[in-house]
Amino acid sequence: MVNQFRYEIPTAIEFGNGVINDLAEHVRKLGGTKVLIVGDPGVVNAGVVDKLSKPLEDSKIPYVTFSEIEPDPAIKSVEKGLNLAKEENCDLVIGVGGGSSLDTAKAIGLMLTNPGNIRDYVGINLVPNQAAPVIAVPTTAGTGSELTIWSVLSDKEAKTKLSVGSIYNMPTLALCDPQLTSTLPPHITAATGMDALTHALESYVNKSTQPISEGLSIQSMKMIAQNLRLAVVQGENSDARYQMLLASLIAAMAFNSTRLGLAHALAIPLGAHFNIPHGVVNAILLPEVMQFNIIGNVDKFAEIAEIFGENTKGFTKREAAEKAVSAIRQLKKDVGITQTLSDYGLEEKHLDMIAEEAMLSGNVPVNPVKPTLEDLKNICRSAMGSEVRETVTN
Amino acid sequence: MVNQFRYEIPTAIEFGNGVINDLAEHVRKLGGTKVLIVGDPGVVNAGVVDKLSKPLEDSKIPYVTFSEIEPDPAIKSVEKGLNLAKEENCDLVIGVGGGSSLDTAKAIGLMLTNPGNIRDYVGINLVPNQAAPVIAVPTTAGTGSELTIWSVLSDKEAKTKLSVGSIYNMPTLALCDPQLTSTLPPHITAATGMDALTHALESYVNKSTQPISEGLSIQSMKMIAQNLRLAVVQGENSDARYQMLLASLIAAMAFNSTRLGLAHALAIPLGAHFNIPHGVVNAILLPEVMQFNIIGNVDKFAEIAEIFGENTKGFTKREAAEKAVSAIRQLKKDVGITQTLSDYGLEEKHLDMIAEEAMLSGNVPVNPVKPTLEDLKNICRSAMGSEVRETVTN
Ligand SMILES: [Fe+2]
Ligand SMILES: [Fe+2]
Repeated sequence: MVNQFRYEIPTAIEFGNGVINDLAEHVRKLGGTKVLIVGDPGVVNAGVVDKLSKPLEDSKIPYVTFSEIEPDPAIKSVEKGLNLAKEENCDLVIGVGGGSSLDTAKAIGLMLTNPGNIRDYVGINLVPNQAAPVIAVPTTAGTGSELTIWSVLSDKEAKTKLSVGSIYNMPTLALCDPQLTSTLPPHITAATGMDALTHALESYVNKSTQPISEGLSIQSMKMIAQNLRLAVVQGENSDARYQMLLASLIAAMAFNSTRLGLAHALAIPLGAHFNIPHGVVNAILLPEVMQFNIIGNVDKFAEIAEIFGENTKGFTKREAAEKAVSAIRQLKKDVGITQTLSDYGLEEKHLDMIAEEAMLSGNVPVNPVKPTLEDLKNICRSAMGSEVRETVTN
Repeated sequence: MVNQFRYEIPTAIEFGNGVINDLAEHVRKLGGTKVLIVGDPGVVNAGVVDKLSKPLEDSKIPYVTFSEIEPDPAIKSVEKGLNLAKEENCDLVIGVGGGSSLDTAKAIGLMLTNPGNIRDYVGINLVPNQAAPVIAVPTTAGTGSELTIWSVLSDKEAKTKLSVGSIYNMPTLALCDPQLTSTLPPHITAATGMDALTHALESYVNKSTQPISEGLSIQSMKMIAQNLRLAVVQGENSDARYQMLLASLIAAMAFNSTRLGLAHALAIPLGAHFNIPHGVVNAILLPEVMQFNIIGNVDKFAEIAEIFGENTKGFTKREAAEKAVSAIRQLKKDVGITQTLSDYGLEEKHLDMIAEEAMLSGNVPVNPVKPTLEDLKNICRSAMGSEVRETVTN
């Protein structure tokens, strides 16, 4: 555990079924006179943007919509959206959607008040000015982008992802309405839910956590253990949807100041080079990373086993810790994530590149076990093979 | 549980041994050009104010010290401190000490930017403007004032306490250095620690909590269960001090948006009329209030029993819930709080007045069991008698 730490969540949270109905009031309180709504085409087609523009129209608050967003938000999307916001004199940004939409909206809000190009701010705490007011409206329960310092932006040409982390990049308001997640299909519910779990869990066992984040990680994992399966198999279960959106947000409150671990270190280059959805690649990696990390935090892995309902009585802590891994394998299988990294085209010849890129991640130094390049390659190898699935205990 | 809720902690937290060494840098970052240091005479005499003024002097940041603070901060203290701040053109307030000092400092910061008199803002969310920057430096592990919307100010003449609650009354920065608590005598460590526990516990079982606060309450209670006794009997135990200061802060993060329960509803009038230290009166009331509240939240009281190390296996939830009460009675006894309300002069003839004043508290509507006036009087009666102590189970 760290001795000295800083913890800060300046974002106000409004949570609950129906909270988006108060959108216009929030825009007014934040001083917004013209709004840029940022949402990807999927969100537009699903009619979600209409749910936000309606209350704005009713309150005579002008807005423009920007929806040229790539699944992994390209740097170019940020630039286009920023130009539109400037042309239209928008002074408040609403991001609505999954991580891509929210990360793009946050970056646009940031560039409305900061000089230069978003590329200038890749890294952590390099941004000089507070962003314009940003309201984040998540429609998936997983990225936690509504409550983090991070925008992860893909650079399509360079096949890489660029992360901008700044306290000024945190939304002003996280407006979280679980009803918006009720129509997510099972595979997206599963993948994003596993992303949320990876956030809570990697933060919990890493070396830079502290008791505030630990308490929040535990709470998030408990809620995911009890609700992720239900949200996947009973999409209309409003309580499960409520709990999962909140669990995702609580995981973000935990990891925002602690960073994560090797699953996220590897997920970024794997996602960029092989086009694997972020939640899926995390889900594939998580049990393998846990197995590797056990000896760096036996007690906490034993606790995780208990949280996920494993029977740990009569077992040693070390044995109980192993059960955490099998519990997560079972969860992953239950929610229908049976892919391997091989299914996405990863081959032995790619491993050097992936391991080298992953090793540069800020998530590596905080991981409970210090990895070598070979360790990272071995984790990928485990996540490539079908034999992994056979170790599921029933 | 509530459906819709707002959760907001705009205060940045800097936590750890030695964090006060960076005080001057924090003042600069917050734009402070002249500082009012607010600390009670005890804090001044203990040399704690010197620890803060030294780094300011080294950095050539001018300051004035205000220490005319009553144990329960009188309205008059706020007015005097405010006049001094205005005369001296202070633009940043540092509060250092226990709840009294911090509550006074916060109120002064608030009145530097708001019109009228602090009495105008008694209640919740009545303040129009953000306060001047306030840095809160707690020297006790209990009130959590460094991270709440509340200033509780006594009105000596009227024998009452006035509570000002506003998001604008939250400090800009909570600068929490556990080393400052290392010389607290055992009886103050015990009383303030029991106050922190009462915050975590009352928030946890009440009707307005939500999972963010629940996770934080559990974390705080676990830390108090493991560290309060040690902090009392081993004052120099730096880990126990660290954990207790952090537990107190985490409890504040939990209850800041949920309010509390009947212990706090009764503690305010009892404290005002009978001059009982806030932590002591909460400690005396807490087991009696828990006993009254069990049937409003059996599952959570059973969990609390487990957190405090009770053996709940083979018992019903209802039986386990009772064990939470005996666990807290034992803790209270172990840390040396053996007083009753009678010891402070409370008699049967006072109970109508106390119950009527308590019933007006905003902590009553959220309590898990709706009380009658007679219920409140019965809780006081239980907390008056010595027979209560005999029910301690060993
Ligand atoms: Fe993630
Ligand atoms: Fe209190």
